[in-house]
Amino acid sequence: MHAGEAGSLAVKLALTTGEPAGIGPELTLMLAAQGALPPGTVAVGDPEMLAVRARALGLAVRIETISPGEALPSLNAGVLPVWPVPLRTESVPGHLETANAAYVLETLDVAIAACLQGHADAMVTAPLHKGVIVEGGFPGFTGHTEYLRDACKVDEVVMMLATEQALHAQVPGWTGESALRVALVTTHLPLRKVADAITAPRLERIARLLHADLKRQFGIAAPRIAVCGLNPHAGEGGHLGHEEQAIITPVLDALRAEGLLIEGPLPADTLFTPRHLRDVDAVLAMYHDQGLAVLKYAGFGRAANLTLGLPLVRTSVDHGTALDLAGRGSADPGSLQVALALAAELSRRKHSGQVHPAG
Amino acid sequence: MHAGEAGSLAVKLALTTGEPAGIGPELTLMLAAQGALPPGTVAVGDPEMLAVRARALGLAVRIETISPGEALPSLNAGVLPVWPVPLRTESVPGHLETANAAYVLETLDVAIAACLQGHADAMVTAPLHKGVIVEGGFPGFTGHTEYLRDACKVDEVVMMLATEQALHAQVPGWTGESALRVALVTTHLPLRKVADAITAPRLERIARLLHADLKRQFGIAAPRIAVCGLNPHAGEGGHLGHEEQAIITPVLDALRAEGLLIEGPLPADTLFTPRHLRDVDAVLAMYHDQGLAVLKYAGFGRAANLTLGLPLVRTSVDHGTALDLAGRGSADPGSLQVALALAAELSRRKHSGQVHPAG
Repeated sequence: MHAGEAGSLAVKLALTTGEPAGIGPELTLMLAAQGALPPGTVAVGDPEMLAVRARALGLAVRIETISPGEALPSLNAGVLPVWPVPLRTESVPGHLETANAAYVLETLDVAIAACLQGHADAMVTAPLHKGVIVEGGFPGFTGHTEYLRDACKVDEVVMMLATEQALHAQVPGWTGESALRVALVTTHLPLRKVADAITAPRLERIARLLHADLKRQFGIAAPRIAVCGLNPHAGEGGHLGHEEQAIITPVLDALRAEGLLIEGPLPADTLFTPRHLRDVDAVLAMYHDQGLAVLKYAGFGRAANLTLGLPLVRTSVDHGTALDLAGRGSADPGSLQVALALAAELSRRKHSGQVHPAG
Repeated sequence: MHAGEAGSLAVKLALTTGEPAGIGPELTLMLAAQGALPPGTVAVGDPEMLAVRARALGLAVRIETISPGEALPSLNAGVLPVWPVPLRTESVPGHLETANAAYVLETLDVAIAACLQGHADAMVTAPLHKGVIVEGGFPGFTGHTEYLRDACKVDEVVMMLATEQALHAQVPGWTGESALRVALVTTHLPLRKVADAITAPRLERIARLLHADLKRQFGIAAPRIAVCGLNPHAGEGGHLGHEEQAIITPVLDALRAEGLLIEGPLPADTLFTPRHLRDVDAVLAMYHDQGLAVLKYAGFGRAANLTLGLPLVRTSVDHGTALDLAGRGSADPGSLQVALALAAELSRRKHSGQVHPAG
């Protein structure tokens, strides 16, 4: 189509539009219509479906189908370049179809391959629906993060969320302006399984990955990490649980002995206060709600998810498919915008190789 | 002393100065020196110890010993009225003495009796040290809250924290200005014991107590409560845990059927965002770090603890004895100020009998 044309753009961000019955397609279209997609963004999904949705919502977006490897059309508000993946069956907003499970996974495969082959600098994922993918013939599917881990053949990845104010490396963990980065040792586990999942080898691997990717992806020369305890009051000297003494403190002591700048284990309700956050680049929480309730509060609906430990840059929205809102054009594209901005920022840094001293 | 004198004040707030080796005495003295104690505050503790600490820190505070039932001296910055309780042995900042365990408990007994006998409207507690009280001959002691529960002969109490911005009933749960009230179903339990502690009878009792005291103490006619799930994503339809379906939802449905305004169970990282907090008077979290990490972040070091379900008003600081800071005069009296302000506000409301419609 426009490959090689003067003024054409290199693809930077492959945006998978996610579950077609959810809000992913319309959030993408809303940002395209507003001219709010970062330069170099290409959507991955069914072009016809996207065109139909745009018309239904009255969004002035022209879909331009191109293929990976082709240069993007010149930057033009209202034009959405798309790498095509065909729906397996028609999709209606709000109505899940198991037949489209393979479609959703293929959009991921296309984006992953593009990143690994150098056709994209980063991938950004709109939400998918785990349940329908499992029911659609992929019983082992547990989520984007694990799918990416397996596709990229790495052993361990780390889920990190960042508020909009914390996209840049230069911003310390807390500036009084809601800048916060939180990584998790465990993610989507029932609460009663969390304590047993906090093992010394796991904690050590996660802490090392977080440290390495704060350097590699965020360009922070000497990342400062604050680690939560597992129990209330970080166990209060063993009175409220023993995991801090038995597992967490020994692991952190060993990492500190290597020179890593790690503080903790600290009580979560002490750590998440200005005195501690001021000098920290990221918080490592032991489990989902310990870290993410405060992150979402601070981020005010504008936070993005980032997967550390992959050979590619992957960011994501921090919300689900919102089937009840789909097709109305009323969902908030704030998190998708933050995920795109974060991916753009990390891509820029990858190219520039910038590294900042701890600030 | 000044009983019955013209201009003398009725005692309103009995402030127990807590562990004498901790920061409680000096926080009290710092506020007294600044004239920052609410009118009607009387400290409970050893007058000589308080006088010595004031001199050591160069704080211009005159200790005036009175007895419960006596009217307070006229309001006078720099004067601290004290209900005397004698130390059992000398106390040095930073050095715990098991011999003083009985002293700390006696300050509580004095304040409780004063509240129950009408000599005080509320009690405010500076921090004590659980370990030294247990070692000092009270092996069953587990904290202020349980001690008050037993002393007041009630079966169940609820721990609630409020940020400074949420002291007043008229303030909804979230105003964009960090106003937040969070109550807990479980409090100081190791994380691995939390799931089994979430039982239907317990959840029901706690929710009813919270509802009743938002009416009685905060004067909110129809309190609106949002309840967190136990598991990440509130169990995601059973994929991440079953307690929501088996326990939490049935209890909340039954309470809703009675007309209580209860939302949930909601994922903690959904609930703690403006969209949900805007219309809520209090959040009920399932466990300590789920609710208090975000509360402390929002409160920015200025939050107070409140015990619901007692026949008296009791507020408290949200921090510990800080033995490492004691004696230096550098600790932050912010939380104590908020606890005093909350107690004063609840006392005023008790007298006026004000009730506000849900806002």
